[in-house]
Amino acid sequence: MYIENINSPKDLKGLTIDQLNVLADEVREGVLNRVSEHGGHVGPNLGFTEATVALHYVFNAPEDKIVFDISHQSYPHKMLTGRKEGFLDVAKMDGISGYSSPLENPEYDNFEVGHTSTSVALASGLMKGRDVLGGHENVIAVIGDGSLSGGEAFEGLDTVGEIGTNAIIIFNDNEMSISENHGGIYRNLQELRETNGQAANNLFKAFGLDYIYVEEGNNVGKLVEAFQKVKDIDHPIVVHIHTEKGHGYAPAVENKEGWHYHMPFNREDGSLKNPGNGENMTALLGQWMAEQLKKDPKMVCIAAGTAPAFYFDKERREEAGKQFIDVGIAEEEGVAIASAMAKRGAHPVFSTFATFLQRTYDQLSQDLAVNGNPAVINVLGSSIYGMNDFTHICFFDIPMLSHIPNLVYLAPTTYEELIAMETWAIQQEQYSVAIRVPAYGCAHSLEEVDTDYSQLNKYKVAHRGEKVAVIAVGDFYQKGEAVVNALANDGIDATLINPRYLSGEDEALLNDLKKDHQLVATIEDGSLDGGFGERIARFYGPSDMKVINFGVKKQLYDRYDVNELLRENHLTEEQIVADIKAIL
Amino acid sequence: MYIENINSPKDLKGLTIDQLNVLADEVREGVLNRVSEHGGHVGPNLGFTEATVALHYVFNAPEDKIVFDISHQSYPHKMLTGRKEGFLDVAKMDGISGYSSPLENPEYDNFEVGHTSTSVALASGLMKGRDVLGGHENVIAVIGDGSLSGGEAFEGLDTVGEIGTNAIIIFNDNEMSISENHGGIYRNLQELRETNGQAANNLFKAFGLDYIYVEEGNNVGKLVEAFQKVKDIDHPIVVHIHTEKGHGYAPAVENKEGWHYHMPFNREDGSLKNPGNGENMTALLGQWMAEQLKKDPKMVCIAAGTAPAFYFDKERREEAGKQFIDVGIAEEEGVAIASAMAKRGAHPVFSTFATFLQRTYDQLSQDLAVNGNPAVINVLGSSIYGMNDFTHICFFDIPMLSHIPNLVYLAPTTYEELIAMETWAIQQEQYSVAIRVPAYGCAHSLEEVDTDYSQLNKYKVAHRGEKVAVIAVGDFYQKGEAVVNALANDGIDATLINPRYLSGEDEALLNDLKKDHQLVATIEDGSLDGGFGERIARFYGPSDMKVINFGVKKQLYDRYDVNELLRENHLTEEQIVADIKAIL
Repeated sequence: MYIENINSPKDLKGLTIDQLNVLADEVREGVLNRVSEHGGHVGPNLGFTEATVALHYVFNAPEDKIVFDISHQSYPHKMLTGRKEGFLDVAKMDGISGYSSPLENPEYDNFEVGHTSTSVALASGLMKGRDVLGGHENVIAVIGDGSLSGGEAFEGLDTVGEIGTNAIIIFNDNEMSISENHGGIYRNLQELRETNGQAANNLFKAFGLDYIYVEEGNNVGKLVEAFQKVKDIDHPIVVHIHTEKGHGYAPAVENKEGWHYHMPFNREDGSLKNPGNGENMTALLGQWMAEQLKKDPKMVCIAAGTAPAFYFDKERREEAGKQFIDVGIAEEEGVAIASAMAKRGAHPVFSTFATFLQRTYDQLSQDLAVNGNPAVINVLGSSIYGMNDFTHICFFDIPMLSHIPNLVYLAPTTYEELIAMETWAIQQEQYSVAIRVPAYGCAHSLEEVDTDYSQLNKYKVAHRGEKVAVIAVGDFYQKGEAVVNALANDGIDATLINPRYLSGEDEALLNDLKKDHQLVATIEDGSLDGGFGERIARFYGPSDMKVINFGVKKQLYDRYDVNELLRENHLTEEQIVADIKAIL
Repeated sequence: MYIENINSPKDLKGLTIDQLNVLADEVREGVLNRVSEHGGHVGPNLGFTEATVALHYVFNAPEDKIVFDISHQSYPHKMLTGRKEGFLDVAKMDGISGYSSPLENPEYDNFEVGHTSTSVALASGLMKGRDVLGGHENVIAVIGDGSLSGGEAFEGLDTVGEIGTNAIIIFNDNEMSISENHGGIYRNLQELRETNGQAANNLFKAFGLDYIYVEEGNNVGKLVEAFQKVKDIDHPIVVHIHTEKGHGYAPAVENKEGWHYHMPFNREDGSLKNPGNGENMTALLGQWMAEQLKKDPKMVCIAAGTAPAFYFDKERREEAGKQFIDVGIAEEEGVAIASAMAKRGAHPVFSTFATFLQRTYDQLSQDLAVNGNPAVINVLGSSIYGMNDFTHICFFDIPMLSHIPNLVYLAPTTYEELIAMETWAIQQEQYSVAIRVPAYGCAHSLEEVDTDYSQLNKYKVAHRGEKVAVIAVGDFYQKGEAVVNALANDGIDATLINPRYLSGEDEALLNDLKKDHQLVATIEDGSLDGGFGERIARFYGPSDMKVINFGVKKQLYDRYDVNELLRENHLTEEQIVADIKAIL
């Protein structure tokens, strides 16, 4: 056992290559221990174990700066930089995040990272900063082949090529993104692998970068040799290493997509420790879309690297044929291709998590909404019940999307309403439409839902009472319903409204409420700042109507306890009822 | 004269190459006539005149679809597609926009375009739409070498390579961006030009694309020959044409940067028809930054292709040396490099127009603010008095930036306050800071301004009155002052507040106002939806305080009359005073 004695990269320096090989196996064992108990990214970390050992053997972190891309592959790095307990000791696993984090370790982690395609761009800033301040350290960017398809990665390569001083780009080519790779560049990468890096045409050289190739990317000795060659180099170089995703754990090698990320599992056969149950709105949506493709030959489902996020597995993708396209991890392209497909008369639907849709603000505005092309964007995961990692928070979507001119943003409250909105949005030819797919629970409508949403900003009154109106958004509609029921028990006959449209006000209805209401309460599963509630507060600002907005405070969030978050933000039903009554 | 008889591309079909050459000269003359009278993009359009004539001779628009990138080069296209009067007749010039626009011409313009690097991505959607629907037209994307550095362009190339069916990418290489090009790829492009397209290493081939080279990109005959070769091709191909920016007008050839865009000028010597006068806040900021670089060796100014926007001309850039970097038209990289430079201890300042900053929403959120690195972002042009083209509206910046967690967004009201905020933001090490550079007027402070802004969200009370408080944001502060003065004349002693911070509320102050105020009015030079005013409306929602927000309605805007816009949105001083008095 060497890992026991490794508390910082300095402790690797005296080891032989054979000992480093043993250490790599121990690190792999630690990664497997963590992900099997705790869940996490499996394949990317297993494939990058040897490279991490070699990196920390050759380079001198923290003086030399290593920047991870998306940091799906940073677990081995964490184990070698003083955080091994988070892998070896079940009790300490919660203390370690799944991503690179200076908050967790300011010495060895240079950036909080959880989105792809950023490492080379960030490295360019470390280069430029070093050069201006007169430093001499190595700047090392790690990036996978899947992440390379993102625009920011190319922009970064271009700038690194321009700056021209020391930078070492470890290009970790495991021949996979989350799913298989998609894009023209992957043919060139294949050519490079097949020619042992000798192909005359070379994407990286075209960006002005030097280049070497290492076929055995899971061989510590070969990696050490390559890294020693490029250490302290005076210009940027790409070290293209060919690795195996999931290396060392058979189930992860056999099913690379399924084992990119995994929930806690039994080591012996890879079976889930806690098989899920219950309905999931996004899974139902994926199933509906797959069926709908058969009925509507104009419809095309678009993924940007994350087809599994909307349950388009390999089988479903193959069945869809021409009616499915994965543009790789390239969200900007995802929106642009959707807009132009709609322009040409097809029925495109692009689905991705809200946190990744952040990359498309300008494309949503310019390529899509300014043009008014009738494409559909499914916004996934937007809930405080969604992913809760620092870099993966999805509940700032309403501030982001609802103020973009000419973009209609819909918030269904049930599965049936979701499907009615999807059906309308896909078939209509008038509006660019984004739909906030409910990410909390899977409610169903008891009554018929409307099928036509072309009259914009028409809110739905579920119950007309008096004095208090509750406008409850999307997957917090049921919470609004519960609040109204609780108020009824206290003798208050409150009005209940499903606003449906996040991007505008129903002025007629809101004005009408002034007659016999004193207070409007808004409830949303998202940010207060720039949220739906502020829209209502502005509307009533000059009038006698009081308004109280329930939502989440603007701040950074990381691995929070959702019940605590609810209480802190006065989002439990009891708190909402109490706050409403306090105002009356 | 041939142009008189050209009302659609069909009218070109019978002409000989010699006649097409004459037509190209007539088109050039039309472009010069328009830009000299009306202002507009000069160099890009002059350089693409021959190529446009050849495109419309060989291809069959509107069946074949041409997509322009940023559409700085679409004037010749407009002249050949029924809009020549907008070039030949001074009285009709206002009827034609400076950009590709289906609203203006639904037949021949496929997209509203004004941001760079989108044409190939949009073309990929036309390809995919065509393939799914069973069409057979040519899809043609035009893109310049300057635009190629943007991430979306690379994402588009990658996807076009993947789709693999007919697409013709006209790569218009005039060896210039707005300024000179920056990035590693430009060495490869030079190599391609120098080898007549024969270099073994080829950026476009690395993206999986076929490729041909045309050295004489301003020769109609050569272009016709090349385009005929690729018409109806069954796979994607890049036609790399080497053109001269400003071709045919000596001043524009000699000073390519100065003549990228130009205000109305005298044809004979290129002198301005209406030399500007008066102070300009952004020009003063550029001058201050250039001087500041000399005092602070850690400071670095960053441009993303638009250094002229903050008055960093060639001389200033050269003087700045290592302390200036232009990352090319690559705004995502601009934010990432700024963040990482700050992490490394440098003092980076990235300046660009708000409309282009839209491309960096995720980088501002993830690469910058989640990390809290102390970089400074100067947000330019955010005013209804700024650029007023459809695709260049800059006054939706507050909804975009002020709700991003952990990003401080400041709004100075005068030059002195701007410089005080810049100085503080550049030197401090605690916050990621964006600064809304006043774009309307150039007010000066009569009193000393604060120098320390580290106590976040502390609004400044300029005058403490009662009953009404006016919170006036940034360059509309002077408007607020005028409103308060007008109210004073009516016997109302209103409070005047400069909020300074757009990203948070001064709760203590706002609570204190409740004591002796009935109404708070907010005034901002920007969008109501998601704007600063809504923040105040939400704060006071549950209380007795009334709130009225003055700002601009969310909608698409194009070449509006600013005085009309003010009136329609109740933003004249008289209207604001009247609205306030109506509520009291």
